[in-house]
Amino acid sequence: MRGYTKDKDAYAKRLRRIEGQVRGLQRMVDEDAYCIDVLPQIAAATRALQSVALGLLEDHLAHCVAQAVEAGGPDGEEKIREAAEAISRLVRS
Amino acid sequence: MRGYTKDKDAYAKRLRRIEGQVRGLQRMVDEDAYCIDVLPQIAAATRALQSVALGLLEDHLAHCVAQAVEAGGPDGEEKIREAAEAISRLVRS
Amino acid sequence: MRGYTKDKDAYAKRLRRIEGQVRGLQRMVDEDAYCIDVLPQIAAATRALQSVALGLLEDHLAHCVAQAVEAGGPDGEEKIREAAEAISRLVRS
Amino acid sequence: MRGYTKDKDAYAKRLRRIEGQVRGLQRMVDEDAYCIDVLPQIAAATRALQSVALGLLEDHLAHCVAQAVEAGGPDGEEKIREAAEAISRLVRS
Repeated sequence: MRGYTKDKDAYAKRLRRIEGQVRGLQRMVDEDAYCIDVLPQIAAATRALQSVALGLLEDHLAHCVAQAVEAGGPDGEEKIREAAEAISRLVRS
Repeated sequence: MRGYTKDKDAYAKRLRRIEGQVRGLQRMVDEDAYCIDVLPQIAAATRALQSVALGLLEDHLAHCVAQAVEAGGPDGEEKIREAAEAISRLVRS
Repeated sequence: MRGYTKDKDAYAKRLRRIEGQVRGLQRMVDEDAYCIDVLPQIAAATRALQSVALGLLEDHLAHCVAQAVEAGGPDGEEKIREAAEAISRLVRS
Repeated sequence: MRGYTKDKDAYAKRLRRIEGQVRGLQRMVDEDAYCIDVLPQIAAATRALQSVALGLLEDHLAHCVAQAVEAGGPDGEEKIREAAEAISRLVRS
């Protein structure tokens, strides 16, 4: 069981849609689309991926981290440090 | 003919690899991977997409924009304005 | 008392250094520095600001959010939702 | 003379406003503002810096790069490569 387990189908669906967006990009390049027209489609796929990452992170805070904090002890602190590092990498990527 | 035409095969290959990364994400979610382990894989796909966008943009500047500027007249200015807007959207996405 | 209270002096110092970086940018523009040389200095100030934001957020999770979660009840969930929104805005800015 | 020379006063003014935003952040931290309320102010300063960077870059393309391209020869190509690298760093910062 993960924080995102109850939304698993929704995440699977969103990732399949992103896969479709990437295939759409392949088609655009294959058909010599105007470069400036390809960029917004790349940005759309990038934003959709970021949005999945943010959703997973929120689910993680709300379940996995919250449970470790409620249980008390060093594990809660460790989970928060781990989440904070993941947030940093996300902001900087 | 586009700025990226001569590198078309390389772009196609990179986009197919990104498609594979997105399918890898689907697998991770399907197999209940630990949330914090999914995030770096999302970041890798995001960076790979950004890198394609930056490559297309450089090719665009080096060919389409440079040719319009060399030809002189308002079209060069227009192409630079259009590229600058695309850069802004890329930085903000 | 805030999550960052015990590090207040360190944050104050970092923000003063960023203020100095912004004044350095003013000087560069005033002295007609080469545009391409100004950009990395802007990026350095931007990264320093982001890093302050990430530090404040980690302190917030480790103190304010953790305390609300430990106390139990809807306030903990609300604090996590609020933090998740702040993270989203940070990633997208 | 730089691409941004004719807009120098406007850039100086924008950078002074950003300096004021950073001083406002110092005040917030000094007065123990709620962490989640500080983050949007940091994001506002970050966006303002990014916007200055994008403005300088557009001026650079429209003047310095365009002139080198019009003059013909390897200098134009070199300027485009340099600008493309600067754009990459901007997108990734």
